[in-house]
Amino acid sequence: MKVRVKLDIKNFIERGDFRTLKMILSQQEPADILEMIEELPPDEKIVVFRLLPKDQAAIVFSELEPDDQIALIELFKEEKLREIISSMSPDDRAELLEEMPANVVNKLLSYLTPEERRETLSLLNYPENSAGRLTTPKCVELYPDTVVKEALEKIRKEGKDKETIYLMPVIDRQRKLLGVVRLEDLIFSDPDALVEQVMDDQPIYVYATTDQEEVAQIMRKYDLFVVPVVDSEQRLVGIITIDDVVDVIDEEATEDIQKMSSIVTTEQPYFHTSVWQFSVNRLPWLVALLLLGTLSSGIIAKFEALLATLPIIAAFMPAMVDTGGNIGSQISALVIRGMALGEIEQKDWWRVILRELLIGAILAFILAITVLLRAIFVTRVTQIMLAVSTALFVVVVISNIIGASLPFIAKAMKIDPAIMAGPLLTTIVDLMGIWIYFTIANLMLSV
Amino acid sequence: MKVRVKLDIKNFIERGDFRTLKMILSQQEPADILEMIEELPPDEKIVVFRLLPKDQAAIVFSELEPDDQIALIELFKEEKLREIISSMSPDDRAELLEEMPANVVNKLLSYLTPEERRETLSLLNYPENSAGRLTTPKCVELYPDTVVKEALEKIRKEGKDKETIYLMPVIDRQRKLLGVVRLEDLIFSDPDALVEQVMDDQPIYVYATTDQEEVAQIMRKYDLFVVPVVDSEQRLVGIITIDDVVDVIDEEATEDIQKMSSIVTTEQPYFHTSVWQFSVNRLPWLVALLLLGTLSSGIIAKFEALLATLPIIAAFMPAMVDTGGNIGSQISALVIRGMALGEIEQKDWWRVILRELLIGAILAFILAITVLLRAIFVTRVTQIMLAVSTALFVVVVISNIIGASLPFIAKAMKIDPAIMAGPLLTTIVDLMGIWIYFTIANLMLSV
Repeated sequence: MKVRVKLDIKNFIERGDFRTLKMILSQQEPADILEMIEELPPDEKIVVFRLLPKDQAAIVFSELEPDDQIALIELFKEEKLREIISSMSPDDRAELLEEMPANVVNKLLSYLTPEERRETLSLLNYPENSAGRLTTPKCVELYPDTVVKEALEKIRKEGKDKETIYLMPVIDRQRKLLGVVRLEDLIFSDPDALVEQVMDDQPIYVYATTDQEEVAQIMRKYDLFVVPVVDSEQRLVGIITIDDVVDVIDEEATEDIQKMSSIVTTEQPYFHTSVWQFSVNRLPWLVALLLLGTLSSGIIAKFEALLATLPIIAAFMPAMVDTGGNIGSQISALVIRGMALGEIEQKDWWRVILRELLIGAILAFILAITVLLRAIFVTRVTQIMLAVSTALFVVVVISNIIGASLPFIAKAMKIDPAIMAGPLLTTIVDLMGIWIYFTIANLMLSV
Repeated sequence: MKVRVKLDIKNFIERGDFRTLKMILSQQEPADILEMIEELPPDEKIVVFRLLPKDQAAIVFSELEPDDQIALIELFKEEKLREIISSMSPDDRAELLEEMPANVVNKLLSYLTPEERRETLSLLNYPENSAGRLTTPKCVELYPDTVVKEALEKIRKEGKDKETIYLMPVIDRQRKLLGVVRLEDLIFSDPDALVEQVMDDQPIYVYATTDQEEVAQIMRKYDLFVVPVVDSEQRLVGIITIDDVVDVIDEEATEDIQKMSSIVTTEQPYFHTSVWQFSVNRLPWLVALLLLGTLSSGIIAKFEALLATLPIIAAFMPAMVDTGGNIGSQISALVIRGMALGEIEQKDWWRVILRELLIGAILAFILAITVLLRAIFVTRVTQIMLAVSTALFVVVVISNIIGASLPFIAKAMKIDPAIMAGPLLTTIVDLMGIWIYFTIANLMLSV
C-alpha cells in the first residue's frame, strides 16, 4: 500500500518549497491528491495544479466538484487550461462541459483539436444519464481478419493511450460490432490464428441511448468489467468500464434515498450545494405536503362535538397516525428497493398485496393488543380502550396495503416509485388514519 | 448481444426433448439461466442442472437463493452434488456454507478434497462482511525474480483455472506481498526483464479483516478492478474482484434503506423471505415506536382543558406533527447518505448544524406563512391562526436541528446513523412537536 502521509500542502506552499512538493505529489494517486487539496482555497489549489504532470492534473481536475472547477478555470493561465482539457478522457471532458455555463463551454471547446471537439460533442449528443455519456471511444479496435500476433502488436503500439486493453471490440469496415476479444484470449491463442477465430462473437453490448441504470444492471448481472457500446445501427461508439458504473450505482441509490425523503434530487455533495439551493430543493414537497396534511383539519373539525365531550380521544391521535405512517414507510421501502434491484416486478403486484394482507393482519393484531394494554394507564373507560384498539387494527391493515400498492400504482403511471415513500406516503396514510379513527370512535362511543 | 430468447424450459421438459434443451442451455450465460429457472419448482430445476456442464452448473447454483439451494441439495444425486460443489469458486463455496444448516455443511465438506476443504474453511474464519469472505485464492502468483517471458508462460499454463489474470500479485517465498503486475505490463515489457522491474511495488491492498464496505470505498476511490488481500502479517490471502464488490455496494444501500425505514435488516429478496420472518423483522421497531408514540397521549392529556374549550386546536395537530416529521426525515436522509458516501464526516457537525439553522429558518418562515393563509379557510379567529403559525415556525426549526443532529449523535455512540431516520426520527420529532404546539397554543390563547 502506498504510504498515505496526510501531506500538509499549505505548509509547503507557505515555505515556498515547491521542488519537494512537486516530487512528493508526482508519486501520489490522483484520488489521494484530490483529498489533500479538497479544502484548500482556489489560489492554493492552482499552485498544486501547476506542479502536477498533465495526466495527473487532468484526472484530479475532472474529479473536482463543478463549483471548484469553475473557480479554477477562471484562475488558470490559458496554457495550463489548454493542457489539462486536452489531456482529459473524452467522457470526463463531456461531463465537465455539461456542468459548465455556456461561455465557459465555448472557451474550453476552442482549446481542443477538431478531432477532440468532434469526439466530445458527439458524446454530449446522447441524453443525460444514458450509456453514451459514460462511453469512452479510447479503446483498441480490431478487425476480424487480423492475425493474433499482429493484433497484439497493435495493442502494444496503441494501448498506452487507451482507457483499457482488457477487452477489445472487433468491428468490420463499416464499424459494425462483430465481437469482443479479451487480452488473455489473444495471449493464450495460436499467434497465427485470426482474431475472428478467438473472439466471442455473441458479446453482450449496450446501446448508447440505454439508460445508465440499465447499463449498471447488465454489467452487474453478467459480471462484466467492460462493455462495448453501439449506436442504433450497431456501429461501435466505444466502451464503458465498470469504475464509471460503480459511481452510477451510488448515484442511483442516493437519488432513491432523496426521493424517498421527498427531496428534489441533486447529485452534488452536501457541502457543495448552497443553503439557498437546498431550501429550494426541499420546499416544494414540504409546502405540498403541508397543504395536503391540513385537509385533516377539515376531517377533525367535523368531529368537533366528539372532541369537546371526550378530549381524551385526541390523546391517542398521534400514536394512531404515527403507527400507520411507520407501517406504510416500512412496506413501501421494501417494495421500492425490491423494484430497484429487479426482485419485484410489476406483474407481482397481487402476490405482494396478498402477502401484505396477511403480514398486516399479524402486525395489526399484536399492535392492537399492545395499545390496549398501554391504554389502561391513560383511561379506565373500557369503551374508549376498545375503540382505540379497534381503530388501530383497521389503520394498520389499511396502511400496510396502501404502502404496498402505491409503488405499483406509481410504476404503472410511469412515475418513479421512490416518490411514493416517506413523507408523501406518511401524509396520505395519516389522512386516512384520522378519518378511520374518528369514524370508529364516533360509532363505538355513540355520542 | 446473445439472442435472449425467453426459453420455455417447462415445455421442453414436458416434451422430453432434453437433447435440444441441453444444446440451447450450453450456449446461455449463467445469469440468463438463473432467470429462466428461477420460478420453476425444485424437481424441474433439478432436470436443468442435470443438463448443464459442471462449470456452468456451479455458477448458477451459487447464485440461487439459500432456500432454493437447500431444496436442491436434498434432491441432487450425490455424484452431481459432489461435482457442483467442487467446481464452485472458493469464495462462492464459503458463502454457500455460511447459509446452510450444520448437517448440510458437514455433508458438503465431506465432498471436498482436503486442499479444497482447507481453502474454504480458512475463508469462513474471517468475520462476516469482511474482505476475507469476498476473497478468492484463485490468482496467478508471481515471484519478483522471475523473468517476464517465464511469468507469461506460467500465466498461460495456470491462467485458465483462475478468477482473473488481469492482475497478478507478486510475493516473496514467505508469501509476503511485494507488489502487483498487470497482464499488460508484462506484455509491454522486455521479455527478458525481471518481474520486479515491471511490477508496481507500492500497490493498494486491503486486509482480510477489513470491512467489505471499506473495500468497496477503496476500490471505488482508486478505480480498481482487482485488489490483493493480505493477512495481518502482510502475507497474500488472495484477490477481490470488482464484480463481487458491486454486489456489496447494492447490499449496503439496501441495508441503509431498511434501517432508515426501521426494519430489522435482511439480505434476502422479498419473495424469499417468509411472511412470518417479515412480521418478526418489522415488529420490534413498530411496538417500540408505538409505545414511544403513546407518550404523546400523556402530553395531550395535560392540555385536556384547552382541548375541551377549543377543540379546533386538535384540527391542526396532524399537519403540525407531519410537517415536523417531514422536515426531520429530509435532513436526516441527506446527512446519513452524506456520511455513507464519506462526504460528511463527524468533525463537520457544527458546519452542518449552522447551515441547517439557516435553512430551517428559511423553510420555517415560508411554511408558517403558508399555514397562516391556509388557516383562514378553517377559522376566523386571528389568535388561533397566529398561535398555529408561530408553533409551526418553532416546530420546523427545531425538527430540522434534531434531524441533523441525531445521525451525528448515533455515530459518536458507534450506532449506525441510518437507524436515526424515518419512523424513529418521526416519532421523536412528533413528541417534541406536540409539546411545543400545545405549550405555545396554551400561552398565546391563555385559557
